[in-house]
Amino acid sequence: MTRTINLAVIAGDGIGPEVVAEAVKVLTAVLPSDVTVDATEYPFGATHFLRTGEILPDEGLAALAKHDVILLGAVGGDPRDPRLAGGLIERGLLLRLRFALDHYVNLRPSRLFPSVVSPLANPGAVDFIVVREGTEGPYVGNGGAIRVGTPHEVANEVSVNTAFGVERLVRYAFGAAAGRERKKLTLVHKTNVLTHAGGLWQRTVDRVAAEFPSVAVDYLHVDAATIFLVTDPSRFDVIVTDNLFGDILTDLAAAISGGIGLGASGNINPDGAFPSMFEPVHGSAPDIAGKQLADPTAAILSVALMLDHLGLADASARVTAAVTADLASRGANGRSTSQIGDAIAALI
Amino acid sequence: MTRTINLAVIAGDGIGPEVVAEAVKVLTAVLPSDVTVDATEYPFGATHFLRTGEILPDEGLAALAKHDVILLGAVGGDPRDPRLAGGLIERGLLLRLRFALDHYVNLRPSRLFPSVVSPLANPGAVDFIVVREGTEGPYVGNGGAIRVGTPHEVANEVSVNTAFGVERLVRYAFGAAAGRERKKLTLVHKTNVLTHAGGLWQRTVDRVAAEFPSVAVDYLHVDAATIFLVTDPSRFDVIVTDNLFGDILTDLAAAISGGIGLGASGNINPDGAFPSMFEPVHGSAPDIAGKQLADPTAAILSVALMLDHLGLADASARVTAAVTADLASRGANGRSTSQIGDAIAALI
Ligand SMILES: CC(C)[C@H](C(=O)O)[C@@H](O)C(=O)O
Ligand SMILES: CC(C)[C@H](C(=O)O)[C@@H](O)C(=O)O
Repeated sequence: MTRTINLAVIAGDGIGPEVVAEAVKVLTAVLPSDVTVDATEYPFGATHFLRTGEILPDEGLAALAKHDVILLGAVGGDPRDPRLAGGLIERGLLLRLRFALDHYVNLRPSRLFPSVVSPLANPGAVDFIVVREGTEGPYVGNGGAIRVGTPHEVANEVSVNTAFGVERLVRYAFGAAAGRERKKLTLVHKTNVLTHAGGLWQRTVDRVAAEFPSVAVDYLHVDAATIFLVTDPSRFDVIVTDNLFGDILTDLAAAISGGIGLGASGNINPDGAFPSMFEPVHGSAPDIAGKQLADPTAAILSVALMLDHLGLADASARVTAAVTADLASRGANGRSTSQIGDAIAALI
Repeated sequence: MTRTINLAVIAGDGIGPEVVAEAVKVLTAVLPSDVTVDATEYPFGATHFLRTGEILPDEGLAALAKHDVILLGAVGGDPRDPRLAGGLIERGLLLRLRFALDHYVNLRPSRLFPSVVSPLANPGAVDFIVVREGTEGPYVGNGGAIRVGTPHEVANEVSVNTAFGVERLVRYAFGAAAGRERKKLTLVHKTNVLTHAGGLWQRTVDRVAAEFPSVAVDYLHVDAATIFLVTDPSRFDVIVTDNLFGDILTDLAAAISGGIGLGASGNINPDGAFPSMFEPVHGSAPDIAGKQLADPTAAILSVALMLDHLGLADASARVTAAVTADLASRGANGRSTSQIGDAIAALI
């Protein structure tokens, strides 16, 4: 019997279509013979918006929600374009999907592959995951402002944290930690200043920890965590943190692990009520778009995360192995986006 | 005629007293013959609180406010002590002082001294300042929670940003940039998610920029800023940012510039309505307290910032020069806290 994966593809803007093409190439190459992919492309992104005025229509969201899984390249146009100001596309498309599809786990592994050069002189063995909350925190859009544009303007942003939201995320993170070799979980927050939110996070970690006696628990303030990420990143195994701290820490984590060109991520709804969405951490990089200069590795590693999520652990491991082998043989000479994709697909 | 500096000293907890002793030693050594210091010690900190139940009484605050300037070592006790949970001392003492004394500029220079080793393989020339807002943002303590401890808990944190508060800080940052060689200012925020606060910050920078045509202006999202801090820190000259982003970025900045042991800071009220307060960025490090293991350099460099603030630019430059010379002659052999202070004082 053949299993069909009903895949939605949002290639997006800038380098998105280029890296997604390679990710799909590798996905097709790695699937076992009894699994096929049925891919549907969706045009959403800044380019589509500028052409049609449409960001993510309700029918588009409903259609996306019917797929098994979503692969996203990158969305966002020229940051100086006033028609796109204030993160219109990022919020209307990317964040809307994360919230509407209840992607409460934003999973971002950081691994320094053997042959990859870190900007750190002595990175040591970097291999950790960040379990970032995806549906709460300062990302909820609950801010507001009065007297805008006057000398008396007051602009507020509200971070909303619920026991429900924090607990399910923390439990997922403990589960992930329990399944790893080092079994260590580090909560990152700023409990000494953000006492209400911080208290909820800390109490939740303390309580859930009792269910996972094999996991060692640690806490770091977010400022201190950035120090350790550059002085001793090998101390980390699983980091669990809120939406905004996770945003900041995962860019830094990608940077020390060889760059944002290798950062994969999954926006996961572990309950399976909605399709999960996999995307490289990098943006649409309009400046290098269409030139075959982008590194598709992050998109390809996001496919590995997607395969894991779909229960295809063998295929996932083969993608990671092919990427590892390809990285080891990369010379100084730049290859095109499709040459890298071809090489990784050939190694499968 | 002799000028007397009316100095308040809060040595604080942990390594605070040790590093402050060296900072005062260097201050005394560097003052011109027509300037004297009249120092008054205040006992506040975690140790004092645990002994007396007092954090910062109103009379203590009033007394501190009468000084010309404040030197603070480090405050905070054992982080696992439940009597100090939730940042009781940090908020009740340190943040209370920053807010009550209207320290709206939190100035944190990052410089990689010639002989200092960075964790980065190729740091390049690191020499920038972070102008962090000190009296607004998520630090205002406007959070709250309902149904605490139940499965229906909701914990909110509110970031408050005012045109008044942002503009005075941004204007200070532009002034600082205009006085520097590279004249470059980078606003760091998260305008694509925190649209209300981000809009206020961005519009304020755009408007004040018109008054400073010599300054080149740049913008980075906070996540991207962490990447550049490890891949290309020499691109930064003046960073202007909010209270929380500044907290995170300055720990990272200290780490790439040779460690938190060298990070100086000033909590400045540029209007002179209240005394400014100078403190090392590092904490009280209870684990190494009392052992003469702490590096007093950050406290000593904070004295240099203090001298600058007091209009004693020559004395400030001599402290920095002495620190630079001492750093150049540091071997692998650890010296005690007071040996480092003695060496720097002798170099003055
Ligand atoms: C584009 C932006 C809204 C997004 C975020 O802040 O989550 C991005 O930085 C990311 O990390 O995926
Ligand atoms: C101790 C803490 C409240 C403080 C802050 O967050 O501002 C510290 O981290 C700092 O940067 O001075």
